[in-house]
Amino acid sequence: MRTYATDIAKSTGKGVTLFGWIHKIRKLGGITFIVLRDRTGLAQAVVEKKEAVKLLERLSTESVVSLSGKAAKEPRAPGGAELRVEKVEVISAVKDELPIEINKKEMNVNIDTLLDWRQISLRAPKEQAIFRVQAEILKTFRDFLVGEDFIEINSPKIVEEGLETGGAEMFEIKYFGKKAFLAQSPQMYKQIMVGVYERVFETSFMYRAEKHSTSRHLNQYLSLDLEMGFIDSWEDVMDLEEKYLGYLIDTLNKNCKGEFEEWEADVPKKPKKIPRMKLSEAQKILGKEYKEKCIGAPDLDPKQEKLICEYAEKKIGSEFIFITHYPTGKRPFYTMDDPKNPKETLSFDLLFRGLEVTTGGQRLHIYDEYVKKMKDRGLKPEDFKDYLVVFKYGMPPHGGLAIGGERLTARLLGLDNVRQASLFPRDINRLRP
Amino acid sequence: MRTYATDIAKSTGKGVTLFGWIHKIRKLGGITFIVLRDRTGLAQAVVEKKEAVKLLERLSTESVVSLSGKAAKEPRAPGGAELRVEKVEVISAVKDELPIEINKKEMNVNIDTLLDWRQISLRAPKEQAIFRVQAEILKTFRDFLVGEDFIEINSPKIVEEGLETGGAEMFEIKYFGKKAFLAQSPQMYKQIMVGVYERVFETSFMYRAEKHSTSRHLNQYLSLDLEMGFIDSWEDVMDLEEKYLGYLIDTLNKNCKGEFEEWEADVPKKPKKIPRMKLSEAQKILGKEYKEKCIGAPDLDPKQEKLICEYAEKKIGSEFIFITHYPTGKRPFYTMDDPKNPKETLSFDLLFRGLEVTTGGQRLHIYDEYVKKMKDRGLKPEDFKDYLVVFKYGMPPHGGLAIGGERLTARLLGLDNVRQASLFPRDINRLRP
Repeated sequence: MRTYATDIAKSTGKGVTLFGWIHKIRKLGGITFIVLRDRTGLAQAVVEKKEAVKLLERLSTESVVSLSGKAAKEPRAPGGAELRVEKVEVISAVKDELPIEINKKEMNVNIDTLLDWRQISLRAPKEQAIFRVQAEILKTFRDFLVGEDFIEINSPKIVEEGLETGGAEMFEIKYFGKKAFLAQSPQMYKQIMVGVYERVFETSFMYRAEKHSTSRHLNQYLSLDLEMGFIDSWEDVMDLEEKYLGYLIDTLNKNCKGEFEEWEADVPKKPKKIPRMKLSEAQKILGKEYKEKCIGAPDLDPKQEKLICEYAEKKIGSEFIFITHYPTGKRPFYTMDDPKNPKETLSFDLLFRGLEVTTGGQRLHIYDEYVKKMKDRGLKPEDFKDYLVVFKYGMPPHGGLAIGGERLTARLLGLDNVRQASLFPRDINRLRP
Repeated sequence: MRTYATDIAKSTGKGVTLFGWIHKIRKLGGITFIVLRDRTGLAQAVVEKKEAVKLLERLSTESVVSLSGKAAKEPRAPGGAELRVEKVEVISAVKDELPIEINKKEMNVNIDTLLDWRQISLRAPKEQAIFRVQAEILKTFRDFLVGEDFIEINSPKIVEEGLETGGAEMFEIKYFGKKAFLAQSPQMYKQIMVGVYERVFETSFMYRAEKHSTSRHLNQYLSLDLEMGFIDSWEDVMDLEEKYLGYLIDTLNKNCKGEFEEWEADVPKKPKKIPRMKLSEAQKILGKEYKEKCIGAPDLDPKQEKLICEYAEKKIGSEFIFITHYPTGKRPFYTMDDPKNPKETLSFDLLFRGLEVTTGGQRLHIYDEYVKKMKDRGLKPEDFKDYLVVFKYGMPPHGGLAIGGERLTARLLGLDNVRQASLFPRDINRLRP
């Protein structure tokens, strides 16, 4: 019977066997001290038996072993107990020193080293915490939406072209002698599926061949997508995201306390109501409060995103803020214009702790309006036949959003670079491991 | 307030408003009969008011409308109630006849027509049922594994090369002037992640550039992957799948009765214990019972898979059967050989209703054994540096499996072609919609 590292305090006085990795090992005279790591955490173990000490002599950290012995109270050990080892079995012996010190609280390596050795650096408890939080984000997103009567879909990632940029900024694939691309968003497919199920979601990687290498961009990123039909207003989409975030925050408070402690990060306060501010209004505030000259610009730049978040937190008491009504020219053709002002769209971004983490809005649902908008933009409707056909055959008013999975993870835990929130990131310089 | 189609019986005598698609419409004298479809199902509506009848006159099926009126008992209507319409609002008018009859119980089109018009054919209730079941498969897989302490991972789909076939049978991507490939399996990454979390799973598309076009193959397929460390025996992996299938079957019985009825399919009986039979034993039975000459062959062919399933059902009373101990040469280099007989591996396939739906087994976990096996096969260990490094730095005994999502869906519902279980399938001839 296996006992887990964090459970030994429950077994003091009894014989137990732990399985795991030697996280730390220290040899002091005839005694060897071990910190053993398994999927539950760390346990302290003391080895005094000669035979066992000898067996451990040539082992480096990360060796996989089983340690059998008696669990005993030890106030200075994590969890208040330690294992007095009677028997060691070596399952996988590591002889070489590790290239990085994953058993230090801080590895103190730069991001390239961290990522070059990703297979090993992920074993560090602090790194592990990131992807436990990310798994929780994905789970809560799906659970929440299933509860709201959404159906999960899996849209194709090998596509003929993209809605947003045609084939530009997309990765080209050799597809049996034909040219194809990696999907940059599931936009077309989630709209098609609104015609089927009304409410759909997808959580999957999407791919963008953008050449810029910043701390905010990934060429392969987790997109948390939803699309919903029969909305009364485009604000329904923001209402839903607000409700989801409340659920996420509750779940993180319940399940991820330890992970946030690893990063000395705070789970955000649950916002009563996330402020919704027009882009033009935000630009006025940025001018007045921070001397930013941005009135009339089609978007906020990274610095302005940070400043407006600072403003929202200080003046409105929210770490989240919806910026709305982006100009028509800035948004893709499928975005619905504001009937009150066709120069602006019924669209929004959600900013959180200084970074855009969601884009969404209402889409057109009438065939003729698509054709008109496309022609206005010099696009040929016949190039989008597979897409337009759904609007010919009846679509309800609908809208949706996409959350950047790594961005949300990174802002929650306070990671500087979005790459840290991708298990095996891909960028212009990185194709491995 | 919106009322859903399947809820009108609860509101008889009251005023309600339905929103949805005109699934059927029949004009008889001054009366128009409508079947309205929304995400919950179908409702019958009767329109007698002149103004409303006139509004409906030029509308084809799939028009999106709202129908307001009084819900009334009507024993002949689905659910025992119908809507007596007082007011119609047209949300999206369809003028053209549909290219396919999605409102017939059977569309009676061949699979190419079905897939060419996929954006619309998916709206047919029988087609919808397929992907409701598939969503349930994905959800149960994840929920079950989270309950077993597994962590969800997202491995990269853009990779340098593959473990199974190098770059052969993989789709090539132009990656910023470099050559890359679409991942054919998450094998390397899920093993890496066993070193981090012990137990991991992933549900994602994988890609295979196989040229054959059969009813069993897709070039983009849903892979339900898991990998687990610290196993006592390779049989632990089969035990886990058995337990998962029990949970899946319970859930399908609870949530998907209607979907199985649409396809006149039966949820499989919950197997007490799925039979586990060596390949060599299966081949003997196939020879004796069905005159198949296959002793010594490295695998079962499609016909033999069907026959051994027939045998398992009739003679052992199970719709599932594990075939085990595939020959060493047939399985990838990372598969562990049977210590009792190194010509056979600790590997298995799960067959269900005549088709292989899972492949799994125990993997090597000792660095030197990888190097030896690679050299024996003429592979260069230095070509697999990113993979081998994890075994250098300590790995526990581990194993895992991959379930083909579309195959499982198809066999559950009795679909002839695995393409029917893919929302937007990709094959050598199909890149759209």
